[in-house]
Amino acid sequence: MSTQYVEKQVKKVDVWKIKRYVCKVKVLDLVTGRNTIVLNKTEAKEHDIYSGFRTEIRYRGESQTAIVDVSEEIVREGEVGVFRDLAQAHRLKKGEKIEIVHMDMPESIGFIKKKLDRGTLTEKEIKTIVREIMEDRLSEIETSAWITAAYINGFSDDEVISLAKATVESGEELKLGKRPILDKHCIGGVAGNRTTMVVVPIIAAAGLYIPKTSSRSITSAAGTADTMEVLANVTFSMEEMRHIVLKSKGAVVWGGGMKLAPVDDKLIRIRHPMSLDPEGMLLASILGKKKSVGAQYVLIDIPVGRGVKVPYMERGTELAKHFLRVGEKLGMKIEALLTDGAEPVGNGVGPALECIDVLEVLGGKGPDDLMHKSLLMAGKLLELSEKVGKGKGYGVAQGLINSGKAMKKFREIIELQGGDEKVKVSDIGVGRYTHTVTSLVSGGIFHIDNKTMSKIARIAGSPVDTGAGVLIHRIRGDRVEKGDKLFTIFSESEAKLDFAIKALNDLEPIEMRKMLLGTVD
Amino acid sequence: MSTQYVEKQVKKVDVWKIKRYVCKVKVLDLVTGRNTIVLNKTEAKEHDIYSGFRTEIRYRGESQTAIVDVSEEIVREGEVGVFRDLAQAHRLKKGEKIEIVHMDMPESIGFIKKKLDRGTLTEKEIKTIVREIMEDRLSEIETSAWITAAYINGFSDDEVISLAKATVESGEELKLGKRPILDKHCIGGVAGNRTTMVVVPIIAAAGLYIPKTSSRSITSAAGTADTMEVLANVTFSMEEMRHIVLKSKGAVVWGGGMKLAPVDDKLIRIRHPMSLDPEGMLLASILGKKKSVGAQYVLIDIPVGRGVKVPYMERGTELAKHFLRVGEKLGMKIEALLTDGAEPVGNGVGPALECIDVLEVLGGKGPDDLMHKSLLMAGKLLELSEKVGKGKGYGVAQGLINSGKAMKKFREIIELQGGDEKVKVSDIGVGRYTHTVTSLVSGGIFHIDNKTMSKIARIAGSPVDTGAGVLIHRIRGDRVEKGDKLFTIFSESEAKLDFAIKALNDLEPIEMRKMLLGTVD
Repeated sequence: MSTQYVEKQVKKVDVWKIKRYVCKVKVLDLVTGRNTIVLNKTEAKEHDIYSGFRTEIRYRGESQTAIVDVSEEIVREGEVGVFRDLAQAHRLKKGEKIEIVHMDMPESIGFIKKKLDRGTLTEKEIKTIVREIMEDRLSEIETSAWITAAYINGFSDDEVISLAKATVESGEELKLGKRPILDKHCIGGVAGNRTTMVVVPIIAAAGLYIPKTSSRSITSAAGTADTMEVLANVTFSMEEMRHIVLKSKGAVVWGGGMKLAPVDDKLIRIRHPMSLDPEGMLLASILGKKKSVGAQYVLIDIPVGRGVKVPYMERGTELAKHFLRVGEKLGMKIEALLTDGAEPVGNGVGPALECIDVLEVLGGKGPDDLMHKSLLMAGKLLELSEKVGKGKGYGVAQGLINSGKAMKKFREIIELQGGDEKVKVSDIGVGRYTHTVTSLVSGGIFHIDNKTMSKIARIAGSPVDTGAGVLIHRIRGDRVEKGDKLFTIFSESEAKLDFAIKALNDLEPIEMRKMLLGTVD
Repeated sequence: MSTQYVEKQVKKVDVWKIKRYVCKVKVLDLVTGRNTIVLNKTEAKEHDIYSGFRTEIRYRGESQTAIVDVSEEIVREGEVGVFRDLAQAHRLKKGEKIEIVHMDMPESIGFIKKKLDRGTLTEKEIKTIVREIMEDRLSEIETSAWITAAYINGFSDDEVISLAKATVESGEELKLGKRPILDKHCIGGVAGNRTTMVVVPIIAAAGLYIPKTSSRSITSAAGTADTMEVLANVTFSMEEMRHIVLKSKGAVVWGGGMKLAPVDDKLIRIRHPMSLDPEGMLLASILGKKKSVGAQYVLIDIPVGRGVKVPYMERGTELAKHFLRVGEKLGMKIEALLTDGAEPVGNGVGPALECIDVLEVLGGKGPDDLMHKSLLMAGKLLELSEKVGKGKGYGVAQGLINSGKAMKKFREIIELQGGDEKVKVSDIGVGRYTHTVTSLVSGGIFHIDNKTMSKIARIAGSPVDTGAGVLIHRIRGDRVEKGDKLFTIFSESEAKLDFAIKALNDLEPIEMRKMLLGTVD
């Protein structure tokens, strides 16, 4: 054989993609939740395909990305092992012939490398990365590299805007067909801080739309979705949420239950183990979700203080300005509040105990701090939307509490979300096993720690056991006498209560003023 | 119940580690090659354990790290699914009770975060990261973040030295008990460049120890280990290698076959998909492996030119200096050679064809470029070890070829490694399916491309089919006439030869000088 070799223009085609072969499905009776296939090791090697490779499987004209695992034992030559979930999703039957095609390198790899090399990504490049993450074409290794690069090298405002847009496009959007739409978001870290469940009914009672999606707890004692779930369902489809909001103007649902900005869930899964919160990704995530529900006026709550994400005011102001800048370019009017985040807000920490606080506040009583902060936020939102004049918001919000209209609206929302609209504080089940901690000394309370209180509540069973948590009896600055009650731990099981009590040996949830801070030997 | 709360010194203990419960083994008939266990989703959630968590499994006083997967279907409450490989490795039987313990966050997380924040890691911190990688306590996400941070923020010389030391400690060391020990390393990228198989016998024939470990191909047509394997075994334990080297003074074995610097394999697995080669990690990897075999004098070959890792001289000089600096602090005397890496070295590309080149060169014939480069390197190594005076090395090396001593030594090594010491060029099996490419035009050869030649060889079956590859008939600068042979593709299968021929449509392995470089419409 012989051909002739000649000068020519060379097409830039990666010839690696000719790695392909056909084999028969063997269904493996196991669910992995990942798109993994198992190839015969020897056969795969012959085709230059190795463990961890991204391949495509092709069958009946369809195709799906899968990650390769190899084995000599599970599958013989000519076979491909398909896990039951993947087989069911694609109706792949035992013995069916499918083609294994080793895919080209994902387009994103070059863009991620560009970010590593301190480059700035275009909107098209960011959308490609997001698309390939959604298609499971990027591995955790590659996604982690992108997030790490974003953390170290930062994102420009334009990159944040591109990522927020791509985040919106990765999922479904709420098309309410009504205006104006208000929303709020707290960047978190404060125990017991359930303002959402007070603000949403106030805003809705004022006649404005507020389709609020909330998250569940990751490391705290409860997320707003966990707490709301004590009173009503929180898992709805986008269409169901639309129906609720069109009727009552407000809703408090779990964002994770609908296909809202799903790329964000994938990114958080990678960001979580290292607690990597690149500011640009945080902003894109928050504002992308707000954009997805059509929000026009958004209030951002930035708690500042010891132990929360933003430790001092300068940093808070910087972050607030970043929100305003990016929000504006995304067509949203943003206001950011820097709030005192050093201590818990409200008395309860844990789903049921927080619910009690919320019902009390909506009833015109309840913890002063939660009441004040909720009115402040609701008032600012009303002013931001220009529904009420500057400086009048707080009073209008207070009026809606005092008239009982906010409570009535909350009960309407509870009913629409499938809960009992007549729910009373005494109906809410708290843990029957309790332990009260009293002060051994007299003195002033210097600090109540958010993270430590959350930990104690979690050890006692929160948020899975909704009745578990901590009820805090005193606030910072209080003068206590020896023997005064400081806080009570609630648990649904004696064993968990014991765990929580033991944990107190290593924790200091309440700091008293002390002179001796330490000794150096 | 009530206890007293009092001012005290708080121990910094993470109370999360109390997440634990006991369940019974269910062996899952599947091999994953990863330490994954499957927990019942509901039960795991009750214990605050989620998919992706690192846990410890404890049984019979032993413990093992495992990554959690969750499922409602595979395992019921009270059960833990254990994959067959994990069950076999730990003799876990169906129904056996094991304890699931959610581990504390790995200590390394803080150190990786420090690197992300542009900090410099201490030796202790780097050793902790390496230890936790070896213990499978760090996930791919976290390891990827560390590598990305090393790529962006760089490593100080001290960090490189710490990593090299930790790399050595991660595996076994060759304790030869003899001196001096020489070694060489090429940073790669040049097709056909099999100098190792010529240099090792020359050095050993000169009476010096050279326990050479080589790698297999990842993306090239063949690694030195693949090529040497045509003539002899290359997979040996550290003890077996010691035995060979004590007898013959030299060896050419596969580094991956022994427990030499195993953390490096784990890092390469993460670095590979993104082609991330942070310079500090590259140096620590190379010099750590040299240190592991006890090398005192090390020659580094840095090919420079179009299409290889180091594109121009300034970069090569910088890298060479980095090698010298770090090597000295590790107690090794290093010399770095910048060599012409723009074109393949030798005629053959692919295991069998490269073996033929090596045998020819040791016989005093063979391709000029491979002969010259091998003598240059062997000579420099002899001078570096002060065995021969400055400027005399090349001549001494040449003498060892001409006298047949190097060939005799090579045959001794082949025999000790279990091969046929009498092997002749005609014994070496090359692919029976061939295709020769000829020139359609007359002109000068402007460039022969390493990567493209490697690709063609791989498509033809190399390195798995050892007889597959490319035989290059001309070199850069040659004047060819229309119809002259340029190169021949060898394959062991007609189908693979066809693939390779088809691939030529999209590739330009040999560039002729041309006037028209492109057109802009």
